[in-house]
Amino acid sequence: YRRPIARLMCVGELIHLGSLLHDDVVDDGLQRRGKPASHRVYGTAVTVLTGDFCLARAVQLAAEEGGFEAVRAFSIAITEMAEGEVLQLQRAGDLSCDYQTYLDVISRKSAALIAWCAAASAWAAGDIERADALTTYGRGVGRAFQITDDVLDYSPATGKTHGADLRERKVTLPLLIAMDRIDGLRDELVLRPPSDAELPTLMARISASGALDEALSQARSYVTEGVSALDVIPAGEGRDALATLGRYLVERVS
Amino acid sequence: YRRPIARLMCVGELIHLGSLLHDDVVDDGLQRRGKPASHRVYGTAVTVLTGDFCLARAVQLAAEEGGFEAVRAFSIAITEMAEGEVLQLQRAGDLSCDYQTYLDVISRKSAALIAWCAAASAWAAGDIERADALTTYGRGVGRAFQITDDVLDYSPATGKTHGADLRERKVTLPLLIAMDRIDGLRDELVLRPPSDAELPTLMARISASGALDEALSQARSYVTEGVSALDVIPAGEGRDALATLGRYLVERVS
Repeated sequence: YRRPIARLMCVGELIHLGSLLHDDVVDDGLQRRGKPASHRVYGTAVTVLTGDFCLARAVQLAAEEGGFEAVRAFSIAITEMAEGEVLQLQRAGDLSCDYQTYLDVISRKSAALIAWCAAASAWAAGDIERADALTTYGRGVGRAFQITDDVLDYSPATGKTHGADLRERKVTLPLLIAMDRIDGLRDELVLRPPSDAELPTLMARISASGALDEALSQARSYVTEGVSALDVIPAGEGRDALATLGRYLVERVS
Repeated sequence: YRRPIARLMCVGELIHLGSLLHDDVVDDGLQRRGKPASHRVYGTAVTVLTGDFCLARAVQLAAEEGGFEAVRAFSIAITEMAEGEVLQLQRAGDLSCDYQTYLDVISRKSAALIAWCAAASAWAAGDIERADALTTYGRGVGRAFQITDDVLDYSPATGKTHGADLRERKVTLPLLIAMDRIDGLRDELVLRPPSDAELPTLMARISASGALDEALSQARSYVTEGVSALDVIPAGEGRDALATLGRYLVERVS
């Protein structure tokens, strides 16, 4: 039984990898995790097609190892992901983007896949009740993961390019809260993107507004909501590990 | 029963559309069917992501309307397609490419999807024997379709850009046969691509070698092979239509 589980876990990895390859082409990024982005080394053609291969192979593995319910849920998750990516692109640079749209984007783009991964083995085992609970867990944790990632962009001393979202005027939860709390910030940003010289002061103002803490607090609520869905699963090592993992995803920021 | 069949047919269309969108980015083409290519109008990002959406939605439809066997076969077909595209890219401009490699590329890149489309409704009906027969039919017809398409590139007065494959030194069946029949042609092409001025003479030499007729004759054999697999299906209007369709795909060239 272990081998199928290991192969099912590869499904999420493959989709993640395929998405990163396509993202590199979509964003035309220079680097990915400190190394040159794929399309800059192998070209756009190879990168797009390798991404397609990862996606196709993931579907195949999901069908082979997970059975019908797993692959059906998976097909819905990857459709949501694609919709989320398109939605994000449509709203790029739109500072009138609201909480609901942000939540919609992160739910589709990040939480849908994490939710499927969390539930995959339950789908494979044909345990629908448990699969539903794990999907709810994964959605909560997935949203929290993305919010935390977005907060990290405003935090010094992380691996991410500090302030990149703000420089691009990308509307994420920290900025949404900050624009509600700081008079005139939205208008200021609508006018023009912040210069490199203005960035540190602006980041400090956003942090001082409490927007980062508030965003993290919302992320924690999503973890709590997700973890509480695990109640239908018998107490034990597995359930505890899932709860710990969920909490870690938010607490890694401190 | 008609609605699911119609929706199943959309699966092939969606995959075809998604592939075309990614192909436009991969080839960086200017036009697609006489209109500006998608990435030149909407940008690379939207085009890649919309292609992903088509792919994901196709998987979802295949699962919803076709059931497990249909989606499993589909996942194998799209993996083959992605492999075929990568293989084709790897061998691009490689004039030492042989018949086996060419056949491998067209089987994966074109025939796999056509085979799945041919068998989709049989998978949905749970009729494995018929699905196998229709897959064999689709593979034969799919290979014939691609060979015919490659011959059309050498034929004047078609919608395709006449001689584009030869200009790019793309090794397709007509060129493979011509290089076997015309002494020194391979070496000539290895040296450098033909100029626009040389192209008409070269095309005429290839045609005069009988390479196009030989390629079409091989295409016809694949159709015959494919159609003969339909024997397990009861005679009638449906079977006749499939046979007619298969033959038409080759005869459209004349």
